Amino acid sequence: MVILMTADCLKKDVAHVLAALKERRLEPRIISTAPRTVLGVVEEMSRGQVEDLKQVISVMPGVEAIEPFGASWKLASRIFRSERTTILVGRQAIGQGGVTVMAGPCAVESRESIIQIAQAVQAAGAHVLRGGAFKPRTSPYSFRGLGRDGLEYLAEASRLTGLPVVTEVLTPEDVPLVAEYADILQIGARNMQNFALLEAVGRTDKPVFLKRGLMSTIKELLMSAEYILAKGNSQVILCERGIRTFETETRNTLDISAVPLLKQLSHLPVIVDPSHALGKRELVPAAALAAVAAGADGLMIEVHPHPEKALSDGRQSLTLEDFDRLMPRIAQVARAVSDFYSEDSGKLNHILPTAPPKTFSPGLACGPNRG
Amino acid sequence: MVILMTADCLKKDVAHVLAALKERRLEPRIISTAPRTVLGVVEEMSRGQVEDLKQVISVMPGVEAIEPFGASWKLASRIFRSERTTILVGRQAIGQGGVTVMAGPCAVESRESIIQIAQAVQAAGAHVLRGGAFKPRTSPYSFRGLGRDGLEYLAEASRLTGLPVVTEVLTPEDVPLVAEYADILQIGARNMQNFALLEAVGRTDKPVFLKRGLMSTIKELLMSAEYILAKGNSQVILCERGIRTFETETRNTLDISAVPLLKQLSHLPVIVDPSHALGKRELVPAAALAAVAAGADGLMIEVHPHPEKALSDGRQSLTLEDFDRLMPRIAQVARAVSDFYSEDSGKLNHILPTAPPKTFSPGLACGPNRG
Amino acid sequence: MVILMTADCLKKDVAHVLAALKERRLEPRIISTAPRTVLGVVEEMSRGQVEDLKQVISVMPGVEAIEPFGASWKLASRIFRSERTTILVGRQAIGQGGVTVMAGPCAVESRESIIQIAQAVQAAGAHVLRGGAFKPRTSPYSFRGLGRDGLEYLAEASRLTGLPVVTEVLTPEDVPLVAEYADILQIGARNMQNFALLEAVGRTDKPVFLKRGLMSTIKELLMSAEYILAKGNSQVILCERGIRTFETETRNTLDISAVPLLKQLSHLPVIVDPSHALGKRELVPAAALAAVAAGADGLMIEVHPHPEKALSDGRQSLTLEDFDRLMPRIAQVARAVSDFYSEDSGKLNHILPTAPPKTFSPGLACGPNRG
Amino acid sequence: MVILMTADCLKKDVAHVLAALKERRLEPRIISTAPRTVLGVVEEMSRGQVEDLKQVISVMPGVEAIEPFGASWKLASRIFRSERTTILVGRQAIGQGGVTVMAGPCAVESRESIIQIAQAVQAAGAHVLRGGAFKPRTSPYSFRGLGRDGLEYLAEASRLTGLPVVTEVLTPEDVPLVAEYADILQIGARNMQNFALLEAVGRTDKPVFLKRGLMSTIKELLMSAEYILAKGNSQVILCERGIRTFETETRNTLDISAVPLLKQLSHLPVIVDPSHALGKRELVPAAALAAVAAGADGLMIEVHPHPEKALSDGRQSLTLEDFDRLMPRIAQVARAVSDFYSEDSGKLNHILPTAPPKTFSPGLACGPNRG
Repeated sequence: MVILMTADCLKKDVAHVLAALKERRLEPRIISTAPRTVLGVVEEMSRGQVEDLKQVISVMPGVEAIEPFGASWKLASRIFRSERTTILVGRQAIGQGGVTVMAGPCAVESRESIIQIAQAVQAAGAHVLRGGAFKPRTSPYSFRGLGRDGLEYLAEASRLTGLPVVTEVLTPEDVPLVAEYADILQIGARNMQNFALLEAVGRTDKPVFLKRGLMSTIKELLMSAEYILAKGNSQVILCERGIRTFETETRNTLDISAVPLLKQLSHLPVIVDPSHALGKRELVPAAALAAVAAGADGLMIEVHPHPEKALSDGRQSLTLEDFDRLMPRIAQVARAVSDFYSEDSGKLNHILPTAPPKTFSPGLACGPNRG
Repeated sequence: MVILMTADCLKKDVAHVLAALKERRLEPRIISTAPRTVLGVVEEMSRGQVEDLKQVISVMPGVEAIEPFGASWKLASRIFRSERTTILVGRQAIGQGGVTVMAGPCAVESRESIIQIAQAVQAAGAHVLRGGAFKPRTSPYSFRGLGRDGLEYLAEASRLTGLPVVTEVLTPEDVPLVAEYADILQIGARNMQNFALLEAVGRTDKPVFLKRGLMSTIKELLMSAEYILAKGNSQVILCERGIRTFETETRNTLDISAVPLLKQLSHLPVIVDPSHALGKRELVPAAALAAVAAGADGLMIEVHPHPEKALSDGRQSLTLEDFDRLMPRIAQVARAVSDFYSEDSGKLNHILPTAPPKTFSPGLACGPNRG
Repeated sequence: MVILMTADCLKKDVAHVLAALKERRLEPRIISTAPRTVLGVVEEMSRGQVEDLKQVISVMPGVEAIEPFGASWKLASRIFRSERTTILVGRQAIGQGGVTVMAGPCAVESRESIIQIAQAVQAAGAHVLRGGAFKPRTSPYSFRGLGRDGLEYLAEASRLTGLPVVTEVLTPEDVPLVAEYADILQIGARNMQNFALLEAVGRTDKPVFLKRGLMSTIKELLMSAEYILAKGNSQVILCERGIRTFETETRNTLDISAVPLLKQLSHLPVIVDPSHALGKRELVPAAALAAVAAGADGLMIEVHPHPEKALSDGRQSLTLEDFDRLMPRIAQVARAVSDFYSEDSGKLNHILPTAPPKTFSPGLACGPNRG
Repeated sequence: MVILMTADCLKKDVAHVLAALKERRLEPRIISTAPRTVLGVVEEMSRGQVEDLKQVISVMPGVEAIEPFGASWKLASRIFRSERTTILVGRQAIGQGGVTVMAGPCAVESRESIIQIAQAVQAAGAHVLRGGAFKPRTSPYSFRGLGRDGLEYLAEASRLTGLPVVTEVLTPEDVPLVAEYADILQIGARNMQNFALLEAVGRTDKPVFLKRGLMSTIKELLMSAEYILAKGNSQVILCERGIRTFETETRNTLDISAVPLLKQLSHLPVIVDPSHALGKRELVPAAALAAVAAGADGLMIEVHPHPEKALSDGRQSLTLEDFDRLMPRIAQVARAVSDFYSEDSGKLNHILPTAPPKTFSPGLACGPNRG
């Protein structure tokens, strides 16, 4: 539910509305304070509750209109926040117009190898180091990663190169440990609807890299982001990594239109992982360039010095040389489209009558109103 | 890896082979003791390790042959165990030939309603009471169940009716609490690859009801069962509950051939949940009867006295009257096919030369051998 | 558009309405004459045309109400015809309550083999002989059937056994040839939306066996049936034969709920082909029994005396012995459910206020009305 | 089967091998004449036939080696032809490095509108005019195009603008009529496996634009192209236009990796149709740019001056203004990637020992050999 206040409402009007909502055990949020104050209620209510609330609120001083949220996701929606979310990691501002490249091996295999790869991808221009210390595996008998040792090696590679680290966390109880080492917490595709895990990372102050499930819809991905946002962590990065279809030539089918669709529906940055989507090294460069041309805020790419010897997913890893050849090309495509999408983002239609709402600010505020 | 001992091997031959395997940090298991002793090694090994091991083991006294496991799942495979697994819950032996019917509401809504439903489904002939106390929900704002109170109400309904209870557990940390109240622990479709949760229920002594993920293959379902079995819990019930396809007339597409396929590949019982698969009440009876005709060991069916008022999934719940009309029909179809499938199960081909292996027995034994 | 006449309308009232519709180049159809006269207009109209027409028709004498068709398929809908369509082929009435079994090889391979198979399946109790003379093949270099010779052999096998024949027709120009030999014209899955072919078989007076496309929705299947019905051929049999999904253990996924769904939406008989759906012989019996339990009007099953030597699709063919063992079991399951579905069909809700409309009769009639 | 002749084979050696193959009712083709002569046999043979043939051919003078084709598609394969196929239409060479843009309305609606659109898209830089005169429609009651009149209007628009025309043909019998007016014959997605239609266009000398079926794998698309090539028409353009998946936010899912995959497996040009794939206008520009970045040889884009009034598929049509804004951006992305893919194509591995085979030439030739 979105509550639009009048242009000349008083601060106390806003306070009264907020109080009335809190009395009903709701947690109202201030969506915007200028040019108008707009309040949001994200909790789900029965039709009866909505009607009751409307009757009470609509007659309160300073209230102009009450409208339903246009989507089931709320905090993730562009209705809630029209400006794009930018996430600062190291010196990189993810979502601010450029292309953030996260590169590294599927799994951390040893101290030496992760340092070698980190140095190579940094030299090639990557911005973030990826690598799995805890690996989800279909079989209980497969290699599941080096665990805490892997985290240590990642941290050392990060210190030596200055690259921030993104790595996966598998269970709520591992969140504090992984958060100690990682700059970005990754939620894997299989865990996209592990709601306890989503809430656990939602309680941290680390950016979260949320991968779309293999058979999850775009809307479900946004609902899972909502779980994290609802716990107070606003730094969520969405990742398209391929969905399951009948086609067997590629491991999954990369849903390229997820990029413009997610950017239309949400203010969160969108990154594409072509390596896991396709499972074949030779298709990765074309898909990476396609993602950039479609407006993605970044790429996650698997790189390995000797893919044929990798402990997992070698078939899809680029060699260091391939990666090095790809990076300047990514930059060229990014330049060819950058202003196309930034122009575009000014053209969105909003539900609000006057102007797009401003950024969410957690404290109470009453913008340009009197009183 | 499967190790077949000779017909005249000595007990000490078996002991030596077991010791040689343990020295290599493997956990060998005795697949069969009569008419032949067969040992199994389930850990994944590199090709090099396999070759090394073969060289060492094949020349040991009493070893006749070494073969690879024919499947990535091992403890769940019929190679490992040719007899069907039967799971005792209350007075019901799931997997022993009849059809076990689990019925109840999607979510426990109140003490009164769950007791009313339990009494009704028991009167109609159901064997197990289902009902969710912890509900996974796509939206963080939806009703997530009554939690511990729901468990209490379920337990009371169980005491009053004598029906054992199956209910979902969402996180590893809730496992002890739910196991205190439930007779069967349910792992929902979204958690089928929540490996930490699988291992947590694998450490309990409660039967586990494992639902196939919306996006999961039959092989992945068996691999997830393997996670539970590998932790020592051999009481796993597999559940087909529909997969995601392009068809939008039904919520999901019930994969009916999963029943004969799972029974061909595994010794575990298979239950079908037509309610969640289809999402439309009027299609549930036909699909339930189809599942029984296909050889399912049981059904999970949602029932609600007033589906139109249910807090969740009312659209797919049978009324108590519908359920009452369906039960005798289930029995009729079960009778029409029962001996068809029991005949059939004797015809399986086994990898072993002489006779199907006997049931797994945890202690060391050396059957009819000398010594 | 459905036009309900008043209980006391005159024959001339009906004639006037029909004339008014024909003036507008529409082809009105009489859906029912008793207890009420109901007229149907199946052509698609713009919203403007609908409004114009309503204004004109609603004030004509004898008109009680005008309502939209509730579905995009019309002649195939239960709104158009509430009684089930029964199709007479030889001595078999498809759709009249029993289970019609169509059996035979994928392709006719020789005169001798098709006669041998026909005699065997007839002895086992099959009702219709299937066999392809024209085979659609993914590769232009594969065996495409014996063509006209195959049709001759089928006809001879039919004469010797008394079994009617169903065989596929691939192009509009082959329709007269195939119709000369076949009792039922089969439209294969790949041709479900070959609209020229649908219209060509729609112009014949032979029953049409219409297979669902591998990725066609239930609604699209009904729309394809509509193409045939709209050309004047009311004898359409719908066939569920599996859809494409991500699961690779079976060739396709048999959508078992298509059976109750199609019977809810349409009056046409529904047959299931488990052989093509699953592609594995050992899964066919369970799926066949499931289809019968779900209420299917029949089965199409591939049978071959030496499946391992079949020129196409041997992997999915039952042996003659398997088929012989399966037939009595099909009868048992059919008996266990038959009255369940016949009871059920009396319970449908209809749009008409008084009673279900009677069968479509092509001539003008005005039932129990005066005049 | 691929037959590699020795470097010093004589012309008569080649003639003898060809004669031996023709005696066996095969139609051998000359894959290459320099630097080596390579012969191809595309017909499918049983294992026995292959063995027989090998025995006979391998001992003939001038034969060095006999290998199986590496793929089920042959004439469409890069093994058969390593150079990229270029198709000349008007002044446009499709597949020669640039991006060919085909634009126009879904259906031709009137003489005036198609001329207006043709002039607008030509002014914006499009190379080919698209527009449907015969429309395949799911419902028999929907608008099915203007037919021959539509073809006349397209031809007139073509004369006025100089743009060649691509338009769909639905049945074998319409092929001569459509070929009279169209520069490129389009086979729609629903007809991708209408083999009689594929063979009919295969007998013409017009380029064929072959759309991937909604349910078809990449391999099946290539096999359908093979049907056309096998009839002697080597001018086939492949089109990715989205596949069916569970995602409902877009009409279909655009399989972007089909572009590099098809270019890896085949020498035929690849064009992407983002309009039909996504069904939402606002997602088309991003997907179009993605396709260009992935290396597509062209785009097919729906354009309509008043999409909200279009008789079909208005929801997915760009306005003329949108199209005008998109065209320069397409050129920019094309420039950013063009040499990336041309570099890449030199790196393919071939089965032949010395050098890539030259273009197929229909007459007999024996390149640089003596004699």
